[in-house]
Amino acid sequence: MDMDNILIDGLEYVNWNRDLFIKAHAGGLTAIHATLVYWEDTKESLKKIDYWDNLIQSNSDIIMHVKKSSDILDAKKTNKIGIIYGFQNSAPIANDIFLVEKFFSRGLRFMQLTYNNQTSLAGGCYEKNDSGVSRFGEMVIEEMNRLGMIVDLSHAGRQTCLDAIKFSKKPVAISHANPNFFHQSIRNIDDDVLKQLANKNGFIGLSLYPYHLKNHGDCKLEDFCDMIKQLVNMIGEDNIGIGSDLCVNWPNDVVMWMRNGKWTKKIDYGESKDKNANWPKPVSWYSKPEDLSNFLMGMISKGINEKIAYKIAGKNWLNFMKNHF
Amino acid sequence: MDMDNILIDGLEYVNWNRDLFIKAHAGGLTAIHATLVYWEDTKESLKKIDYWDNLIQSNSDIIMHVKKSSDILDAKKTNKIGIIYGFQNSAPIANDIFLVEKFFSRGLRFMQLTYNNQTSLAGGCYEKNDSGVSRFGEMVIEEMNRLGMIVDLSHAGRQTCLDAIKFSKKPVAISHANPNFFHQSIRNIDDDVLKQLANKNGFIGLSLYPYHLKNHGDCKLEDFCDMIKQLVNMIGEDNIGIGSDLCVNWPNDVVMWMRNGKWTKKIDYGESKDKNANWPKPVSWYSKPEDLSNFLMGMISKGINEKIAYKIAGKNWLNFMKNHF
Repeated sequence: MDMDNILIDGLEYVNWNRDLFIKAHAGGLTAIHATLVYWEDTKESLKKIDYWDNLIQSNSDIIMHVKKSSDILDAKKTNKIGIIYGFQNSAPIANDIFLVEKFFSRGLRFMQLTYNNQTSLAGGCYEKNDSGVSRFGEMVIEEMNRLGMIVDLSHAGRQTCLDAIKFSKKPVAISHANPNFFHQSIRNIDDDVLKQLANKNGFIGLSLYPYHLKNHGDCKLEDFCDMIKQLVNMIGEDNIGIGSDLCVNWPNDVVMWMRNGKWTKKIDYGESKDKNANWPKPVSWYSKPEDLSNFLMGMISKGINEKIAYKIAGKNWLNFMKNHF
Repeated sequence: MDMDNILIDGLEYVNWNRDLFIKAHAGGLTAIHATLVYWEDTKESLKKIDYWDNLIQSNSDIIMHVKKSSDILDAKKTNKIGIIYGFQNSAPIANDIFLVEKFFSRGLRFMQLTYNNQTSLAGGCYEKNDSGVSRFGEMVIEEMNRLGMIVDLSHAGRQTCLDAIKFSKKPVAISHANPNFFHQSIRNIDDDVLKQLANKNGFIGLSLYPYHLKNHGDCKLEDFCDMIKQLVNMIGEDNIGIGSDLCVNWPNDVVMWMRNGKWTKKIDYGESKDKNANWPKPVSWYSKPEDLSNFLMGMISKGINEKIAYKIAGKNWLNFMKNHF
């Protein structure tokens, strides 16, 4: 087994079907952290898990459910894509600590504390005042640490990131975001947060979502790779991966669902400053799951050290996950 | 009809039965704001409303459900106790703005934004960092204003109180708490918050819960009445009522439920500094719902102007509710 060639995308939100799985499989992907829900409540989230369990069963010749990090190696060995379940919000656990274990037992391995807005656990990146991690948030982090569920700080506020990095007994992840030094955005991350994250062996998955990129959908591969070099120089080469945030095969109303959920009767345009209600145009060099393989080659072509490029394309994520499940 | 003699308790948490209703009825109560839930989720809360609807139907000779403030006058006319439904938390609406109207249509007329802990709407009084009112919190307050549901800031943090007082287009209530000048407590209220509350015609219901009182269960009627005089002097006589916070006929494990809900696996003792897991001993002069009538006489006997005493015992609450429903 060529253990170097582990390709892991640390976050995607794809409306999968057999055809898309076949293409991703042909592209050599090893594992994907898949977003199951954003605003869904407990019952709706359990149904989403049912849906995904069925999706995996129906395509079990080419994909499999990852519950342990060693399952990723099994996926590699058996030539399948490993699917890791994640929630981009804590809405599914509402105010109930006991639901963390319930969802863990169903295979959940990543959970964000917040999605843009405040939750009972913590502050979101779009809030005027970020509470940081709340009393309940601390209890949930302890429980996630105990179980081996990764605390994901994407879409969290700055203070929440700092609090969680400090409080968590296990390293935390920001599965999909970029440094603010590359592109200033509410969703991107300040240098000091990145440094504190890395000091505690925390992880950042770099995002390809257009609003997180310099020049959005026109971002050049070269600029993105320059950012990677600068980031490696800042926090080292071990705590960086890809969390492409690819959103594929969804109708446009889904991006409005992601922004508005059930929390407002008015329209919130989220990251779109020009009030665009459609999906933003992806970069040409990373627009579908199977592009990770080409992107790996792209990193090398743009002068990123080959060993580092392979680490960023998957091995780092695998090592990080080994600390948790 | 003797309209002076309107007796309203602005918050009670009683495990009612026929016998307790008969006693409260004999004691001349006009209306009670009854707490239905603390930590219950949407489904559990809808079941609690079913339970209460049935309780009211089963005792319809002496109690009735208040949906409009004019129902309180009907209760008075027909010699019944009016029951006003309230939630001591926003857990029932989770992150769903549309549930506010659903619960309103079932008769809910008071809802707290928080119960001690942070919610997706706002910060609780026990949080280290109070977020104030969140993005979702503002949407919910607008919706409550539109429908005529009273925003209750009991158990909220200081910043949340200030934010909500400022943001709400209709006057808000703190249904059960006391001034910190009387007894310093996390649950009680600072002078400047009380003044800003009253400046916007907001309301405070004074609490008889032992932990909110000087000398707790040994608090003297005289001291409580002196506090009232001082408060009237500070914010005027119109925005003050009683929210006794009487907890009657519950086993001791219910006080632990109120404190711990589902948010922690450890034990949190809440307001009990000596880690008492039982209900605190109530004051002798206000230990059951029907004591409001005696307390009214007690206020007068301790030198509170008779007109003011009657207002505090019920008329003020009625006038405040008229602004909402």
